Amino acid sequence: MRASVFCGVSLDGFIARPDGSVDFLDGHGDVEGDLGFSAFLDSVDCMVMGRNTYDFVVASGAEWHYGDTPVFVLTTRSLGGPSPEGATVEPLQLGPEETMERLGATGFTHAYVDGGVVVQQFLAAGLIDELILTRVPVLIGEGIPLTAPDAGDVPLEHGGTDVFGNGFVQSRYTVRR
Amino acid sequence: MRASVFCGVSLDGFIARPDGSVDFLDGHGDVEGDLGFSAFLDSVDCMVMGRNTYDFVVASGAEWHYGDTPVFVLTTRSLGGPSPEGATVEPLQLGPEETMERLGATGFTHAYVDGGVVVQQFLAAGLIDELILTRVPVLIGEGIPLTAPDAGDVPLEHGGTDVFGNGFVQSRYTVRR
Repeated sequence: MRASVFCGVSLDGFIARPDGSVDFLDGHGDVEGDLGFSAFLDSVDCMVMGRNTYDFVVASGAEWHYGDTPVFVLTTRSLGGPSPEGATVEPLQLGPEETMERLGATGFTHAYVDGGVVVQQFLAAGLIDELILTRVPVLIGEGIPLTAPDAGDVPLEHGGTDVFGNGFVQSRYTVRR
Repeated sequence: MRASVFCGVSLDGFIARPDGSVDFLDGHGDVEGDLGFSAFLDSVDCMVMGRNTYDFVVASGAEWHYGDTPVFVLTTRSLGGPSPEGATVEPLQLGPEETMERLGATGFTHAYVDGGVVVQQFLAAGLIDELILTRVPVLIGEGIPLTAPDAGDVPLEHGGTDVFGNGFVQSRYTVRR
């Protein structure tokens, strides 16, 4: 069971503002294609999402970007309300390791892990194999960092970098074990 | 009077560990050349350094990397002890704006600004024109961030990215006014 992160990051290392907003990803001119997101989504067979991120996406009323990929929302509470149109969503009340075990036992092979706290927890637990980070040309000063303060060093191997015409710099890293 | 930053950054956005150490920049295999540092140093005619960084460099006993570039150390105290061998060092008890005014009035045209707190202060004051950041493939979880929390958004323009064989990704940005 592999797990990957695919997200935008401010130049100072934040994946969202303190309130979960990712508006700083916008306003950088035309983006070529979808920055490889569709190809990435095709490479996973399930998604693990934090509760805050799920609520934020639902509250925003934005289009559901994850197609029919089964999305497991880590939460201790009922999801409440209807799922977004077209979404396959299931709550899961498990920690990071148990989540990966359960998904692997169910037959899944590659999870897309998304959401500030969840990414931090999965990184700290050594469960992330790959990070695809799109570096956005803005400093935002504060927000939700990619890593939790007590996670220790996580050495990575650079797998390649693509530069987009609007100044986005996307780099792929695998976690060294 | 222009000001530029040239530094290494962990993938999660820290320019030093909490104690000022930058050991996470090491251990990434052979570095090709000097990552453009000599050329950058040739492009500046003075350097502004924070007191913590100066003390850290002096205490480390490391070779002085800045040649005969005049280095102004922002500090409210005497520098104490001898300067490193070959260094041209002068203390300056001024804030960011006053420092830039003074250096400009003295005839300098391009400052290399270095050190966690000083970089944060100069960025917050809108005094940085250019950032050359070398992204190092490791997450360190905590440290001195590139930006201060209250600095607000700083929009940037991407000027180019070079990828080095050891996985370092160096990007150049200019600050949009």
